[in-house]
Amino acid sequence: MTDKKRILSGMRPTGPLHLGNWHGALINWVKMQKEYDCFFFVADWHALTSDYEKTGSISKYIRDMIIDWLSVDLSPEKSTLFIQSHVKEHAELFLILSMITPVPWLERNPTYKDQIVQLSNKDLSTFGFLGYPVLQAADIIMYKPFGVPVGIDQVPHVEITREIARRFNYLYGDIFPEPQAVLTQTSKMLGIDRRKMSKSYDNAIYLSDNPDVIADKVSGMITDPQRARKNDPGNPDVCNVFDFHKIYTDKETIDQIDKECRVADIGCVKCKKIMAQNLINALEPVRKKREYYLSRPELVDEIIKNGIQKARNVAQQTMEEVRAAVKI
Amino acid sequence: MTDKKRILSGMRPTGPLHLGNWHGALINWVKMQKEYDCFFFVADWHALTSDYEKTGSISKYIRDMIIDWLSVDLSPEKSTLFIQSHVKEHAELFLILSMITPVPWLERNPTYKDQIVQLSNKDLSTFGFLGYPVLQAADIIMYKPFGVPVGIDQVPHVEITREIARRFNYLYGDIFPEPQAVLTQTSKMLGIDRRKMSKSYDNAIYLSDNPDVIADKVSGMITDPQRARKNDPGNPDVCNVFDFHKIYTDKETIDQIDKECRVADIGCVKCKKIMAQNLINALEPVRKKREYYLSRPELVDEIIKNGIQKARNVAQQTMEEVRAAVKI
Repeated sequence: MTDKKRILSGMRPTGPLHLGNWHGALINWVKMQKEYDCFFFVADWHALTSDYEKTGSISKYIRDMIIDWLSVDLSPEKSTLFIQSHVKEHAELFLILSMITPVPWLERNPTYKDQIVQLSNKDLSTFGFLGYPVLQAADIIMYKPFGVPVGIDQVPHVEITREIARRFNYLYGDIFPEPQAVLTQTSKMLGIDRRKMSKSYDNAIYLSDNPDVIADKVSGMITDPQRARKNDPGNPDVCNVFDFHKIYTDKETIDQIDKECRVADIGCVKCKKIMAQNLINALEPVRKKREYYLSRPELVDEIIKNGIQKARNVAQQTMEEVRAAVKI
Repeated sequence: MTDKKRILSGMRPTGPLHLGNWHGALINWVKMQKEYDCFFFVADWHALTSDYEKTGSISKYIRDMIIDWLSVDLSPEKSTLFIQSHVKEHAELFLILSMITPVPWLERNPTYKDQIVQLSNKDLSTFGFLGYPVLQAADIIMYKPFGVPVGIDQVPHVEITREIARRFNYLYGDIFPEPQAVLTQTSKMLGIDRRKMSKSYDNAIYLSDNPDVIADKVSGMITDPQRARKNDPGNPDVCNVFDFHKIYTDKETIDQIDKECRVADIGCVKCKKIMAQNLINALEPVRKKREYYLSRPELVDEIIKNGIQKARNVAQQTMEEVRAAVKI
């Protein structure tokens, strides 16, 4: 038991984690472990909402995700790390919340129609996709967290969870605290092609990329588009590589590159090499931890098993209260 | 194990069972026990689709329903009698089928809009109500039955289950046989006010009504509306009491009443008394069995527990296949 306030968050296992995930979520999660009683889960059932037509890689991604988490210092001692589909209570609570959630709440969900348009190559007109905020609400309120760490764009998701919790409480009695949106800084990290870093754009640098792959990807990064030749002066303010420097390179070197780039004293090739090396260095402890866990599959199994059991204990307790309240 | 083909059906526990349920479904179910490996379940989660705002009586109705079933000779030895919400696998399969079921299939479900109009006193615009055919599909295909006994009006429900099963098989491999609609005769039994017999019309004669209540209800039945006085000749062809006679009274007496009514030789009061007594007699073995089970609550507990365990064994096996197929 702990006196810390509880937070909860999850990630869909749709591929290996990249720098965008690291800086956008994981680094926040790692920090939060000090202050909060953290529950982090692999949202594998959620992965079905968009990937139901090709599920072949999900189980590999689930394990990879746990290993990615462990590698960036999410700690199985400090946090409860678990896999959604192994805590069947989520499905039961989803079913019960389904019965009380008005369809119009789901239809007006701002991301719903966005996603259907954005992912127009997939058929997302499924009942499960319409209802993913209901599943998300079940995932969250099951653990009665004080808050949910989210970027500003995800605040509407937490809002609908709060509405569903409120409706449950109104109908059946006060079981669920309404979770707060705990705003965290989101990453504006771009991929090597300057679009948002994303697996689906094939422009990501992964936590699991080895140094050669990283060096190769960095060497292919698009820099200041106006700088065609080495002798042209560059503009770090619009250079994606420079944004990476701001994260991975020491202040002094950054200032120096800033100056030299603007007068073409340093070329993109050299600048990228410096950044690549610093990025590789920054990922070195992550890589070490990954190797540690990859060479100890039984330990990973054990961590997963224990996390699931910890989550299940809480979920079973909640569902007993839910069944008593709903009288079913 | 059995070589018999399997059938499955369920009932929503929304109140005590009446003569309409008996003649419309239960008598068919009892007969089917000879020919089929029968799974019958109390659809308590389904009761939430329409009754989520007042769930206080559901748990009482669940037990009453099991006792009603036992009283009319559904046999825990021959059949698997169970309660849906105690087999959590239904919720998990519902969740998975949600992901592959197109919303338009649900919106075009012919009973969906009907019900919303018919039950306009309830707010049925919920996600769960829209998705009840998905839950129904999960309930059914979980047990891979050969067929589902239904009245002609429920054939579209089985059709959507078949479509969902087909879609699952197409996406993930052949797991689910498509269940057949096994057409059974439906009851046209009217209530004491000549409307369809229904708990919500407060016009039903219940299997659990005692003889006095039955006599009282029968005495209040509406007969031939044209027959205002005892001396008016009546028309058995339009008399609801006469329809009851056709079920509960011997052929000879029926013929005699038919004749006497048409010439006002028998009055409605006497005619009803004869019918009431025959109905009471027909229900006598049901009443005896009810008393037997009511006085043995531990036996009922045991029957419920065993039925749930039998269902769970099948459901767990199915879900292992489902998880392996979906790879999650």
